[in-house]
Amino acid sequence: MQIQWKPDKSKSDYIQDQIIQYFKAKISSGSWPVGTRLPSERKLAEQFEVNRSTISHVLDELKARGIMASYGSKGTYVFNNTWSLMQQPDWNRHIESSLYKPNHKMIQQINKYEFQEGIIRLGTGELSPDLFPKDIMKALLIEASESVLALGYEENLGQLKLREAISQHLTTLNIKASPDQILITSGALQALHLISIGLLQFGSNVYVESPSYLKSLYTFQSAGMRLQGIPMGNEGLDVDQLRSIYKRKEGNLLYTMPTFHNPTGIVMSDENRLKLMELVNAYQIPVIEDDAYRALWLDTPPANPLKSLDPNGHIIYVGTLSKTFAPGIRVGWVTGPQTVIERLGDLKMQLDYGTSSLSQFVALKWFEHGYHELYGADLRAKLLDRRNHMVAALKRHMSPYGKWEVPTGGFYIWFVLNKKINSSVLFERALKNNILLNMGHIYDFKENHALRLSYAYASKSEIDQGIEIISRLIQAL
Amino acid sequence: MQIQWKPDKSKSDYIQDQIIQYFKAKISSGSWPVGTRLPSERKLAEQFEVNRSTISHVLDELKARGIMASYGSKGTYVFNNTWSLMQQPDWNRHIESSLYKPNHKMIQQINKYEFQEGIIRLGTGELSPDLFPKDIMKALLIEASESVLALGYEENLGQLKLREAISQHLTTLNIKASPDQILITSGALQALHLISIGLLQFGSNVYVESPSYLKSLYTFQSAGMRLQGIPMGNEGLDVDQLRSIYKRKEGNLLYTMPTFHNPTGIVMSDENRLKLMELVNAYQIPVIEDDAYRALWLDTPPANPLKSLDPNGHIIYVGTLSKTFAPGIRVGWVTGPQTVIERLGDLKMQLDYGTSSLSQFVALKWFEHGYHELYGADLRAKLLDRRNHMVAALKRHMSPYGKWEVPTGGFYIWFVLNKKINSSVLFERALKNNILLNMGHIYDFKENHALRLSYAYASKSEIDQGIEIISRLIQAL
Repeated sequence: MQIQWKPDKSKSDYIQDQIIQYFKAKISSGSWPVGTRLPSERKLAEQFEVNRSTISHVLDELKARGIMASYGSKGTYVFNNTWSLMQQPDWNRHIESSLYKPNHKMIQQINKYEFQEGIIRLGTGELSPDLFPKDIMKALLIEASESVLALGYEENLGQLKLREAISQHLTTLNIKASPDQILITSGALQALHLISIGLLQFGSNVYVESPSYLKSLYTFQSAGMRLQGIPMGNEGLDVDQLRSIYKRKEGNLLYTMPTFHNPTGIVMSDENRLKLMELVNAYQIPVIEDDAYRALWLDTPPANPLKSLDPNGHIIYVGTLSKTFAPGIRVGWVTGPQTVIERLGDLKMQLDYGTSSLSQFVALKWFEHGYHELYGADLRAKLLDRRNHMVAALKRHMSPYGKWEVPTGGFYIWFVLNKKINSSVLFERALKNNILLNMGHIYDFKENHALRLSYAYASKSEIDQGIEIISRLIQAL
Repeated sequence: MQIQWKPDKSKSDYIQDQIIQYFKAKISSGSWPVGTRLPSERKLAEQFEVNRSTISHVLDELKARGIMASYGSKGTYVFNNTWSLMQQPDWNRHIESSLYKPNHKMIQQINKYEFQEGIIRLGTGELSPDLFPKDIMKALLIEASESVLALGYEENLGQLKLREAISQHLTTLNIKASPDQILITSGALQALHLISIGLLQFGSNVYVESPSYLKSLYTFQSAGMRLQGIPMGNEGLDVDQLRSIYKRKEGNLLYTMPTFHNPTGIVMSDENRLKLMELVNAYQIPVIEDDAYRALWLDTPPANPLKSLDPNGHIIYVGTLSKTFAPGIRVGWVTGPQTVIERLGDLKMQLDYGTSSLSQFVALKWFEHGYHELYGADLRAKLLDRRNHMVAALKRHMSPYGKWEVPTGGFYIWFVLNKKINSSVLFERALKNNILLNMGHIYDFKENHALRLSYAYASKSEIDQGIEIISRLIQAL
């Protein structure tokens, strides 16, 4: 091979880069196909009028990148001329070697199909747009427009007035939390992310009801924690099982949703709550209590949170406006011992420097004007009607195929199939019929044949239509 | 020691917990002071009428917690009766063993004192409330109140219309990015956090200008990356230095702020931009370009972003509304190769499930109505006036003590002291005079004696007053 080209010495400090670019141009243009042997380092150095060490460095660089390779002592040849290898950083290798896990494939699909037109969302954990309090929102935004909002960066923990309003709200649940024990988060999910990086260590065990929606989230798994499922019955998680498998270690903790559990709808009984708190106190078990669905009771108000039985600070309590007002507002809160809240607030400054001030303002007025109670009552009536509608549809179409309990609050009916089915096949066939299902197995630690149905999102006619189609698909399987 | 108490067998599965609670009550009430020896396991088992294994288990539990200890074979005694040890999970050990680093102490102090009344903030990276576009905000909120906002969960990448508007905005900077190559983030900072967990690995090197505000953030350091400082001059980062120290490895990348660099205000020269891109292309170096301050040019518009010179997808480009509209809105964006954006969007679903819909709506209208350009022009005029004012104050009071360049855009003047001073002492003394300073050393990799001064936040009279006081404090040191 004859090389005529020489680097341009007038831009002396670019020589290596010029040579690399020259080689890459030759290879990517096809002038030097795969297998082409290069002249020796000595000859290249002579031709380019540079030191041999410069040539060495250039060839090492191209070899490290997989573009060239050596025959031992016999010289260097072109090994690969793939365009992306030649021209781009290898982003896929960056992604594969990085810290966090991608979401569950089915969750990725669900996240995507939720935005497809015409799809019936039978499992969505979100209020229907019909249930959005438009008039309240309008009033709150007009109020916001009249206030002088500077919208600067916020205090570490979030707007003081909003923390005061939430502190007030928590007293109605028998929880004493001063504003400096409350952190405003971008939804309850962010509180979990903050806990994962701010309180737990790689390899910690997070004990959690089995099934649990936490299993589908990957927030803890990505940060290197292991989820351990605790069986649950109609009274909530099995405290004896927890006692027997719980291992004391910094970073280990219990995550529980004792009230209107997602996905099963179960409410932990009063007796079981006391039993759990006795264990928690005896073993000093740190607990995250997720109380996202509390306000959505349909029959009678549920027992107060575990946090109300926690004078010693074992529990980190998480709440949100996503399920009772609107998820798009992205306002949640977390309360617990002050050292914990300060830690989480400090780390929030490394993640996003605070939650939208606009959202915080609207949330403040939501509480101040009493909409949390007023609209809550309205919403419960509408959700009750929807729940009853879905239960009737299940009775009509699904009785032969499985069992369910009628939930006393929240969004979900946990439908357990009588027979094994192939979850992925049912999911795909439902999709072909424009129905999006949240299959139970994404929430579980063991094989399961269940569906998380939601009466919160789809309209009544969509519920009827959807359930009927699903019943036919199950029959066919 | 005589024990009369027995566990209540009628609640049989609580026996262990009852015994633990009994022991703890005795210890914390002072009945059993530190050093108290317990009866043997055999005697305890007889007294409580339980198996010896139950007693073993209880004692192991209390020993693991540091409440009791053993004398080898001679039995068990009370080792510690600290109240928090007895009653609470050890949250401090959780915090200390967890994944992320706390923020720099001085940053924590700055975050705190920024909200103290009467303080003069001479270094704050934020627009003064005087510069907040109140009338525009009012109009945008009235518009929002008139729109039917359902405020549901959003698409993975953020509202399509907002991504379209940003795509449009980017074309004015000669950047081609389709909406599916754009992710909406909660400020530019969240984009960095997503990159740290979604593209980098533990131990990756992030190359960055020295000094850089990234050094003060801990976002990458917390996730286990190392920052490596690259010297910079008046033309921006030293490309030759980068070439000589850059190591190829998945996860390694360059973070740069070529335009109105924070904290130095430097703009990378055109020639140096081309030289950097030549290196980036030759070595296929992945790059994060942070362009937060671009719109705030005071003399002439800056060169187009590096990203406009990047047909091969080496650069992840980050922008934000925080510096040109308001930080409290928490809207930023990131664009890059589609695989990268999809990856970051997928992970955002593990962190906070999307950015506030309200903020996204306001940001959309901000772009749609052309305020980004209109208000930008207004803001530049006001910032120019403030910059000139601060430069005049520096000339009056600070000339004997150090040097500075007049920045051509952004918020900051990088004031380099002539002599070594004790940074912490100056910071503390300034605080006593109600002045909050951002000391240069928090941004640097080597010892430095500089201040990051900001003309964006404090009022003109505060600037005069603050600079004068600081000059006296420096003289006294």
